[in-house]
Amino acid sequence: MSTRIVEVRKGILKKNDELAAALRGRFGAAGVYTVNLVSSPGTGKTAFLERTLSTLRERGLRTAALVGDLETDNDAQRLARSGVPVRQINTHGRCHLEAEMIGTHLEGWTLDGLDYLFIENVGNLVCPASYDLGEQLRVVLMSVTEGEDKPRKYPGIFNSADLAVITKYDLAGPCDFDLAAASANIHAVRPGVAILTTSAKTGEGMDAWLDALAGLRARGA
Amino acid sequence: MSTRIVEVRKGILKKNDELAAALRGRFGAAGVYTVNLVSSPGTGKTAFLERTLSTLRERGLRTAALVGDLETDNDAQRLARSGVPVRQINTHGRCHLEAEMIGTHLEGWTLDGLDYLFIENVGNLVCPASYDLGEQLRVVLMSVTEGEDKPRKYPGIFNSADLAVITKYDLAGPCDFDLAAASANIHAVRPGVAILTTSAKTGEGMDAWLDALAGLRARGA
Repeated sequence: MSTRIVEVRKGILKKNDELAAALRGRFGAAGVYTVNLVSSPGTGKTAFLERTLSTLRERGLRTAALVGDLETDNDAQRLARSGVPVRQINTHGRCHLEAEMIGTHLEGWTLDGLDYLFIENVGNLVCPASYDLGEQLRVVLMSVTEGEDKPRKYPGIFNSADLAVITKYDLAGPCDFDLAAASANIHAVRPGVAILTTSAKTGEGMDAWLDALAGLRARGA
Repeated sequence: MSTRIVEVRKGILKKNDELAAALRGRFGAAGVYTVNLVSSPGTGKTAFLERTLSTLRERGLRTAALVGDLETDNDAQRLARSGVPVRQINTHGRCHLEAEMIGTHLEGWTLDGLDYLFIENVGNLVCPASYDLGEQLRVVLMSVTEGEDKPRKYPGIFNSADLAVITKYDLAGPCDFDLAAASANIHAVRPGVAILTTSAKTGEGMDAWLDALAGLRARGA
């Protein structure tokens, strides 16, 4: 039985990879830099994205967002307040986004003229690691409230990320968060990856994150 | 393709349900009350369980624990400090525990004379909902740092739980946590379920939790 599951999963992943490659080509042609945000539920992806969208708007950049959840359009409603185009993807029980869902939810949208497209994945530290969404950059978020050892417990998703962001840094004190230990754990599973600290609440670290993003986009990394 | 996945999954779940029923019979015969703890990664399941085990020990009760993670035996090491038998289950990529893993990891253990067996599931708000582990009680944990709307976004796991525990309550202030809103969201997906607030750090609410647990065990609920 378990062999069969693996085969079915491989089949799904192969199809997903093909669709993701096509999406990546489309994003490249339109000149839009696409970012896939992955994390545990409750890491603060939506608050981080909300502040990211509004700050990029102040900088005169054009953005859009797709947000995944099993149910509800709470996040799309929150993000729409940033004044940018947002669409909710409801997975109805699936624990991750897939490339096909991205393609479907981009229908009717013009990507030309867009600087950034953000995809907020379903909150899950396991399965989203395996699904390429055609993004140019995968960012893993981890909050100071989650415990410094998460990268070692969920190595797959940290290993698949191009950048790590530590969120809710305003709570680092009350949570006795140990940045050196967390960084060492991230680097143990993803050597050399850049690690940024942010607080969507206070704004701390948001400019550094957006500068880093602009640099990556400029280099086409 | 998607039909085939559903069929394979149904086959797995049927097999899992059979194994879970056998485990439940075994737990009942041995007089051990088994509790399955489910939550997002970083909700503080291990800290909660650590304090639960040491307090039950002080109360003269005999406990044991099985703890699930993709990788590492960090949690088993932490929990072993409570002086109770603990075994780590590494799922190596699986995002949930299954009944078969429980059976395998109980080998060589005598359940007779044990009052409670705790199972700490893999941190994940989606797939653990579908896998019965033979437990008598399923407890969903949610921390004050995660956002009050998690139950609506992940209704399956909250709906499958017999009891809800809100953790890290010492951080409720710094997190502007709204207990009434969180409770309303839990009750929207699981009407009438009991909701407790706890802090493993300060000990707040731990006695109430253990009293509730003793009551449930006594009633065989």
